[in-house]
Amino acid sequence: MDEVSVKGWVRTFRSKRFLALNDGSVIHNIQCVIDFENTPEETLKRITTGAAVAIQGNLVESQGSGQKYEIQVTNIEILGDSDAEDYPMQPKKHSLEFLRENAHLRVRTNVFGAIMRVRSVLSFAVHHYFQDRGFVYVNTPVITGSDAEGAGEMFRVTALPAQNPPVNEEGKVDYTQDFFGKETNLTVSGQLEAETYAMALGQVYTFGPTFRAENSNTSRHLAEFWMIEPEVAFNDLDANMDLAEDFIKYVIRYAMEKCPEDLTFLNQRLQEEDKKKPAAERSEMTLLEKLRFVLENNFKRVSYTEAIDILKNSKPNKKKKFKYIIDEWGADLQSEHERYLVEKHFNSPVILFDYPADIKAFYMRLNDDGKTVRAMDILFPGIGEIVGGSQREERLEVLQDKINELGIDEKELWWYLDTRRFGTAVHSGFGLGFERLVLFVTGMTNIRDVIPFPRTPQNADF
Amino acid sequence: MDEVSVKGWVRTFRSKRFLALNDGSVIHNIQCVIDFENTPEETLKRITTGAAVAIQGNLVESQGSGQKYEIQVTNIEILGDSDAEDYPMQPKKHSLEFLRENAHLRVRTNVFGAIMRVRSVLSFAVHHYFQDRGFVYVNTPVITGSDAEGAGEMFRVTALPAQNPPVNEEGKVDYTQDFFGKETNLTVSGQLEAETYAMALGQVYTFGPTFRAENSNTSRHLAEFWMIEPEVAFNDLDANMDLAEDFIKYVIRYAMEKCPEDLTFLNQRLQEEDKKKPAAERSEMTLLEKLRFVLENNFKRVSYTEAIDILKNSKPNKKKKFKYIIDEWGADLQSEHERYLVEKHFNSPVILFDYPADIKAFYMRLNDDGKTVRAMDILFPGIGEIVGGSQREERLEVLQDKINELGIDEKELWWYLDTRRFGTAVHSGFGLGFERLVLFVTGMTNIRDVIPFPRTPQNADF
Repeated sequence: MDEVSVKGWVRTFRSKRFLALNDGSVIHNIQCVIDFENTPEETLKRITTGAAVAIQGNLVESQGSGQKYEIQVTNIEILGDSDAEDYPMQPKKHSLEFLRENAHLRVRTNVFGAIMRVRSVLSFAVHHYFQDRGFVYVNTPVITGSDAEGAGEMFRVTALPAQNPPVNEEGKVDYTQDFFGKETNLTVSGQLEAETYAMALGQVYTFGPTFRAENSNTSRHLAEFWMIEPEVAFNDLDANMDLAEDFIKYVIRYAMEKCPEDLTFLNQRLQEEDKKKPAAERSEMTLLEKLRFVLENNFKRVSYTEAIDILKNSKPNKKKKFKYIIDEWGADLQSEHERYLVEKHFNSPVILFDYPADIKAFYMRLNDDGKTVRAMDILFPGIGEIVGGSQREERLEVLQDKINELGIDEKELWWYLDTRRFGTAVHSGFGLGFERLVLFVTGMTNIRDVIPFPRTPQNADF
Repeated sequence: MDEVSVKGWVRTFRSKRFLALNDGSVIHNIQCVIDFENTPEETLKRITTGAAVAIQGNLVESQGSGQKYEIQVTNIEILGDSDAEDYPMQPKKHSLEFLRENAHLRVRTNVFGAIMRVRSVLSFAVHHYFQDRGFVYVNTPVITGSDAEGAGEMFRVTALPAQNPPVNEEGKVDYTQDFFGKETNLTVSGQLEAETYAMALGQVYTFGPTFRAENSNTSRHLAEFWMIEPEVAFNDLDANMDLAEDFIKYVIRYAMEKCPEDLTFLNQRLQEEDKKKPAAERSEMTLLEKLRFVLENNFKRVSYTEAIDILKNSKPNKKKKFKYIIDEWGADLQSEHERYLVEKHFNSPVILFDYPADIKAFYMRLNDDGKTVRAMDILFPGIGEIVGGSQREERLEVLQDKINELGIDEKELWWYLDTRRFGTAVHSGFGLGFERLVLFVTGMTNIRDVIPFPRTPQNADF
């Protein structure tokens, strides 16, 4: 029998006797047994869901089922009340939509507590993986004056007055008077900057917020998300694929080892959700089975050209079930095609590589065939694209030709081109959308539920 | 004798024989001895500073002094040339100003390689410290719709056209048509959001980019910097000071253990810099001595009131050497006063606490005296303020009064006030400017030199 002193929040209180207390550190509550006959009625009334309390008592083996230990309370102090009528987080099941509107409180529920602890542990796994292997963490800038990345629509960052900003002689907004003396945006990728560091430090990685001003109101897109971008000198595309696969397996394994209780809870949650669905829509595997499946199987590596053949000859293509019919090499793959490959044909994570140059970014290395580039995408069941990467074009002239072809001003990229002018070498890297990884590991289906305060079109609350 | 195969960049090449190779993983080069008589003249010419090379050879104990091992080269391949005339990073000492203009290449120098490796290890130490203690890492949003933080000038984030944005009936810019449907800015602090998480998960921390649109062109300010913000439920200000001191000592010790070679190099660099100064301006301690001093001594904890007394009676105050003379309680301390306390009077890191309410933020807990708040700042020699923190005002009514007094709309902070409405409790936290920590640990003096691509007024290059 140990005397203990604990503080936390009331999750439930029943029979004036059993208080389920949680301090946020783990998913399980500790049962605190109140000696209600010797506790003032006034205090008992204040033991409501959400109230903060300080408890003193004795930790003993529990008489009841459901827990090994419990606290026999000798003293309870109400630190902060929580009006039972007003408190939005009632002890019942709330919809995920309702919880999103209360993003500041939803983390007090079991589901969101578990998600956010798993997210945190996954973040640490990311750093652990790279630091243990001698990678240097690089904080690439969030505010960028470079608009040549071409990865998507950008948000403008400005300190000029919104109304009647200063204009120059041509009648255009005069950005020379803005904070940075030029037009600036929020970064869509730290890759180009990370490349300059890889060409000095060898192995580097970024892990920071990234932005897209795209009006995509889907369950897979955020306007602000966290991205991991390793970049390695002397790695070719094969080494890059090896790194990505090894990395993903490591962080999933790490979360499974460090968060068994949270993942067991999320596993059960998903099974219960599944039971409500018609049989045909239920998952073949539980969450934990899916995670183990990824760890135990090699990702299928398939060239774009092979993938096109598979898709062309697929049932949904022949029966015109795809919205976009695949009829020739060169087509950009849509989400429906990626899902078919991953969820129907291979039933496994897939790495697609060697894409047509025309549908990929300028910095990817051109193959000798003159029409494909050393790009790779990793596709996950239920998630879609989780990684996009490539071997970079290290040859100055080839890169310059491509830049000119696209009408990008070389002067904008003088510093990027310098890495090819001075001591250039084969190098590769990839970007992994951190929230998509968290989605996969937690079994959630809407990306808004795996980041504390999601930013999406029409929503920047909190 | 081991056969080895290495890739890296040429740092120097002398006597057609001794090639100093570096792959960025450590500060030391490996000496590669070229059999120049059996190497084509054409190849020898291409072994220039900055060139990328692949070397095969035998690792043997070195005959020469200065290194234990060397590689006797059996084959060398030039992967990427570096024109000796054009390469900006000549094998000589460059000014820090010149290197800042070449931020994409400066990391190829010994100094910046060392700084960036130390920075990376310090980042990992931050995560290690908190994760080992059960803190949950929280990614608070970078784009914020909340303008009540009041920590400084903000950058606006927008997807509206800069020229002729849509206007509403009042003739004002119509932010309802902007991406988020309202005016948004770059965050100046994740504290308020972190508080909501601490009141659910107990112990949390943020570590992410933070922004100030202030026109401060000093060696201590950046427009974009990384901040660490732990927040702990049930911690009072004393526990908060303990946490901050323990945390800072941990990360410094961690860097000293993991980066002995880089820190020894930076230590020597600083000693050499010091020798060039007049005797009176030289440091009393070397960099490593300073770091050890911080580890081995308690930070001095001094109330604001005591500090004012010390300052009032100080020589520079009496002799009117301070720009701002301290004549009464309530004065805001300037950098000159902080430096006097830390560098002259105490000669130690100092924690100042219990500041006048009037000069501190609205969310800090009011003391019973009705005029001071439970705030604390940690001041470091040579750096100034490195930490600012407080116990938070957990009482709803007191907080509401303060908010109303300041003319802040309560509706703006409805979610923040909810944490005081439902299960409020004592809690505390602090913010630590990561670059100031890196400054201190590396012994650099300009904050632009400890972040890869600094953002300052008129500068968003790369």
